[in-house]
Amino acid sequence: MYNFEFYNPVKIIFGKGEIAKVGSQIPQGEKVLMTYGGGSIFKNGVYDQVKAAIAGFDVIEFGGIEPNPHYETLMKAVELVKKENITYLLAVGGGSVIDGTKFIAAAVYFDGNDPWDICAKKAPVTKAMPIGAVLTLPATGSEMNGNSVVTRAEYQEKLSFGSPLVMPQFSVLDPEVIFSLPEKQVANGIVDAFVHVIEQYLTFPVNSPIQDRFAESIMKTLVEEGPKVLANRADYDAAANFMWSATMALNGLIGVGVPQDWATHMIGHELTAYHGIDHGRTLAIVLPGVMQVRRQEKKDKILQLGAQVFGITDGSDDKRIDETIQATVDFFESVGIPTRLPDYNVPAETIAKIADRFEKRGYTVGETKIGPAEIKLILENRL
Amino acid sequence: MYNFEFYNPVKIIFGKGEIAKVGSQIPQGEKVLMTYGGGSIFKNGVYDQVKAAIAGFDVIEFGGIEPNPHYETLMKAVELVKKENITYLLAVGGGSVIDGTKFIAAAVYFDGNDPWDICAKKAPVTKAMPIGAVLTLPATGSEMNGNSVVTRAEYQEKLSFGSPLVMPQFSVLDPEVIFSLPEKQVANGIVDAFVHVIEQYLTFPVNSPIQDRFAESIMKTLVEEGPKVLANRADYDAAANFMWSATMALNGLIGVGVPQDWATHMIGHELTAYHGIDHGRTLAIVLPGVMQVRRQEKKDKILQLGAQVFGITDGSDDKRIDETIQATVDFFESVGIPTRLPDYNVPAETIAKIADRFEKRGYTVGETKIGPAEIKLILENRL
Repeated sequence: MYNFEFYNPVKIIFGKGEIAKVGSQIPQGEKVLMTYGGGSIFKNGVYDQVKAAIAGFDVIEFGGIEPNPHYETLMKAVELVKKENITYLLAVGGGSVIDGTKFIAAAVYFDGNDPWDICAKKAPVTKAMPIGAVLTLPATGSEMNGNSVVTRAEYQEKLSFGSPLVMPQFSVLDPEVIFSLPEKQVANGIVDAFVHVIEQYLTFPVNSPIQDRFAESIMKTLVEEGPKVLANRADYDAAANFMWSATMALNGLIGVGVPQDWATHMIGHELTAYHGIDHGRTLAIVLPGVMQVRRQEKKDKILQLGAQVFGITDGSDDKRIDETIQATVDFFESVGIPTRLPDYNVPAETIAKIADRFEKRGYTVGETKIGPAEIKLILENRL
Repeated sequence: MYNFEFYNPVKIIFGKGEIAKVGSQIPQGEKVLMTYGGGSIFKNGVYDQVKAAIAGFDVIEFGGIEPNPHYETLMKAVELVKKENITYLLAVGGGSVIDGTKFIAAAVYFDGNDPWDICAKKAPVTKAMPIGAVLTLPATGSEMNGNSVVTRAEYQEKLSFGSPLVMPQFSVLDPEVIFSLPEKQVANGIVDAFVHVIEQYLTFPVNSPIQDRFAESIMKTLVEEGPKVLANRADYDAAANFMWSATMALNGLIGVGVPQDWATHMIGHELTAYHGIDHGRTLAIVLPGVMQVRRQEKKDKILQLGAQVFGITDGSDDKRIDETIQATVDFFESVGIPTRLPDYNVPAETIAKIADRFEKRGYTVGETKIGPAEIKLILENRL
């Protein structure tokens, strides 16, 4: 196990009916900007629940934060925060709304010309506004971490930043929000959470049984509970288990003291940037390619994944690796997520564009140092 | 899964050499009271490492906090804090030192006649001094929670309190402290951590696969890594895995949204109070009795423990329950911890004294409502 630091002060309030507690979590007298997305919260009742919970506060609303939240949209919120002297941000939504709100929180205090530098140049975040969150879609884990991914539409760029200063002070997780989610969003969330675990697990062994077993616990639970949620959206227990799995997948805990990869995410982000493919779907496309191309470097952990999560224990190493890659593909497809580029009408030319982009950025991705040549092979594997 | 709140802002700094970071974690200008126990830190080098790390601070020392920290000792530290205008507490030790330091932190600001009321009458903690910790003995999990157990020697009482206000701001976990631990302390720590998990696991199912699997992950790791630590104290990886297991066993995470018991601890505390038996050893005595007497109420979870942790899957329910209780006993005895009252020269009369005490206190213990009659049966099972 490597040396590590772990710090996660996000307060989680979990369970049915808990949205009513939001008001008690925000300090009296704060002027609140309530951020949200495209308006699903009006249909599922969450908007009304949140408004009732914060009735005692001076609240201004900022809706319309899109999936893969746009820098351009978020900068409008930054202006509003300054103009209205907002003191507290309340994100009500899924990962995009929470990620976007983190960017707003940091950009308000950014000391420089262009807050995009926080993502593009990893400019340090030295101060941020306080954030609370009400999660409406389990997937990204943003509700319990300091990570954020923002898209700058004009550059077709999707980049991330992270800071403990943008961790929510509290997040309310009511599994009942899942009851009204469309199938596609549930499926995307299952895959997203699963691949978050993979990025912190599927590297090479460093003798870390707690982290490995926790990771396998989350993946097994997603494989079991995900299909139950899809089959019956009103299954509260399955919804709760799925929601808690997605949060635990990316709150930092399973990643302490172990190598991490994130190659699948980095390559997937480019598919979203160029073709607007949902984030979870890009991961389902890219991961099997990463497993295939890095099957030697990741061999021990692929075999462990096969044995512990998919019950694959017979045959030669190569056979078990093949079966584990196939089991991963089958799992994604079983929840209705296609895993090949043609399924999304991505032309072969995109592969060279993405490889070129990494070439220009001049960095390799992931713990196993994946460069432009490997990225090409990975994406060609997905044709 | 039940509704729950989870909040754990303790910053963990984990790994070899990390004690050097202690100074950077304490705000400049604080006047520090460094608390410790019987002096093992002088022999293993931890004292020198800590003193070097906090060379820039005004530091007063308070040593001699005993195992099962005594109220009487801790109140002397409270006086010292007031007299010397101490502003920050740095606990350097195992669970007893950290628990004791939590009591000091709360007692300094106690608004009433006798700070013992914090334990005896569950008087609310409304303010506490900031605490940092350097862990020297993995066992209690105190380094990452807000729990504390204090003994009042004159009353032969051992009672607990808990408050998020006494959670350490940071805890440094350097597995190398294990290298010089005596076998008995390692063994006690293994059993203590194992039973912490049991108290949050061995109740009844509420459909909580993440919590269950995390709990099983910790127990399996303790069963595997514990003996390695005992066999070779200089095995860094085993030490690190044991240390992280003990912390994860009681930082609140595996207990969210599930029923908890704590009957084994409550009964065990009485054996320490009357006979001074090490805490971990009292748990090894009591737990098999709890499992036997509550074998019906805990049936599903005993079977799950047997299957998932000890690989017991064949035969009737009764047979598997018997085997799982025996496997638990065998595990404790394999690390050198006897599990019966006569092994510790506890006379049969003690059983009635303990049952009487619970009778007088007028409460049952644990999620499965264990009263004086069951406590008698449990302890009689351990004769």
